[in-house]
Amino acid sequence: MGAIIDGKAIAKGIKEGIKRDVESFKKERGVPPKLSVILVGENAASLSYVRGKEKACAEAQIDSETLRFPANIEEKRIIEEIKKLNENKSVHGILVQLPLPESVNQNNVLEAISIYKDVDGLHPYNMGKLFKNESPLFVPCTPQGIIELILSTGAEIKGKKATVIGRSNLVGKPTSILLLYRHATVTICHTRTEDLAAEARAADILVAAAGRPKTVTKDMVKPGAIVIDVGISRTEKGLIGDVDFEGAREIASHITPVPGGVGPMTVAMLLKNTLKAAQMTME
Amino acid sequence: MGAIIDGKAIAKGIKEGIKRDVESFKKERGVPPKLSVILVGENAASLSYVRGKEKACAEAQIDSETLRFPANIEEKRIIEEIKKLNENKSVHGILVQLPLPESVNQNNVLEAISIYKDVDGLHPYNMGKLFKNESPLFVPCTPQGIIELILSTGAEIKGKKATVIGRSNLVGKPTSILLLYRHATVTICHTRTEDLAAEARAADILVAAAGRPKTVTKDMVKPGAIVIDVGISRTEKGLIGDVDFEGAREIASHITPVPGGVGPMTVAMLLKNTLKAAQMTME
Repeated sequence: MGAIIDGKAIAKGIKEGIKRDVESFKKERGVPPKLSVILVGENAASLSYVRGKEKACAEAQIDSETLRFPANIEEKRIIEEIKKLNENKSVHGILVQLPLPESVNQNNVLEAISIYKDVDGLHPYNMGKLFKNESPLFVPCTPQGIIELILSTGAEIKGKKATVIGRSNLVGKPTSILLLYRHATVTICHTRTEDLAAEARAADILVAAAGRPKTVTKDMVKPGAIVIDVGISRTEKGLIGDVDFEGAREIASHITPVPGGVGPMTVAMLLKNTLKAAQMTME
Repeated sequence: MGAIIDGKAIAKGIKEGIKRDVESFKKERGVPPKLSVILVGENAASLSYVRGKEKACAEAQIDSETLRFPANIEEKRIIEEIKKLNENKSVHGILVQLPLPESVNQNNVLEAISIYKDVDGLHPYNMGKLFKNESPLFVPCTPQGIIELILSTGAEIKGKKATVIGRSNLVGKPTSILLLYRHATVTICHTRTEDLAAEARAADILVAAAGRPKTVTKDMVKPGAIVIDVGISRTEKGLIGDVDFEGAREIASHITPVPGGVGPMTVAMLLKNTLKAAQMTME
């Protein structure tokens, strides 16, 4: 029976460390780190995520504000707001909660964020620095959190076979790149992969970020593998991941639960990035 | 016995098409597309590559100039030259021949190039757009050429297993990403990969970009695979690739030779990118 990777507890430890660093920052600078979140429309999941981020900021003594706009706002208005935040010295991090309404070009909005305040790490410049392995200012939060969870098991990543299911900009691709930089042999799978079960079964480290419940079943897990479940699907039974947790747990050495696995780490990494953004302004 | 993918002939066809488009461009605009190459120091391979690029430009009626600097030039001087080229409306493409001397920070130099003239596609912004799959202005030349060579065989990439050996910014990573966007299941291997032979043998499409002769031997090729050899090592016997060509050819369905495979395609794609840079200024 595999051990459960307790993302909630690991995130708690990280957040306590950040809180201490925030206190030092405030003592030195007289002001807190500050995160501005832009929320467009009334997507229920987005509202819930934003509330979680606000709460985590408050706990870490990071100042936060949420700028809310109706779903029919014009793209150029959002970009104007971002430009104001870019200029505003009391704001250190800017986060645009995704998805945006379809009428808005998401790329234009993300590219308007100053690369120095891009705490989600989704600006093409920061993504390019990540892709080139040239010290990006910010690395996307969920992939950072995934690496921390894998390292928490004490396992070595170097030389291991890692399979990532999903090729999104938020999770699949940046997670693959971070695993590559830690010297895993990385395979990226997706909906067109012909034999997903075989690719999954070959993996010492299996990251499921497909966004489809039960993508990974017990027979797809290599004995002793580390299984990271990034899926979050809202169902009548509550949040469920991409992995058949009970089945996979019988085979894996370590596995993350949903909820309480990757989710809390994403928020912890957002706080870390926001503190970093504030610290970068010190010089 | 596998068919030889004749990169030289395929590149010739592409270059002829570019030449026709260049002629149309000149007729419309009264000026030719122009590429400026920055060459620092006396690296023999670099000199040879730059000569090849100049010759190919001349054949396609693309104007080119090479700005040569001594190996001890200061970084800021190179950046000043690039800024002048960025402002110069008669220059459409800027290419810095790599490697630069160790005293120069390569990243600073590449980031000084205007993203609109970045015909090598190595600016972090363009690499980030590539990584995000958001229509980069320019895609690196060698990876583009590799995709063209694979497509020339008539094989479908979608759903196939592709193994890329090497994780460089110039070849390995961008080639992996381009194969991913064409819906291959992509595995990236490198020096820390534990069982390279097995990863190679699983591949329907095998791209060898390790830069080490005989990295891929006959026993590492899946019967019927397409083998693309990106290696170029200069030896006493001339240029040799990463693949044991004679052995691998017995097993592969298609294979590129060295020289005459990927190399000519890289130059053809550079001409294509330079023409694109010139065309982008038309509006």
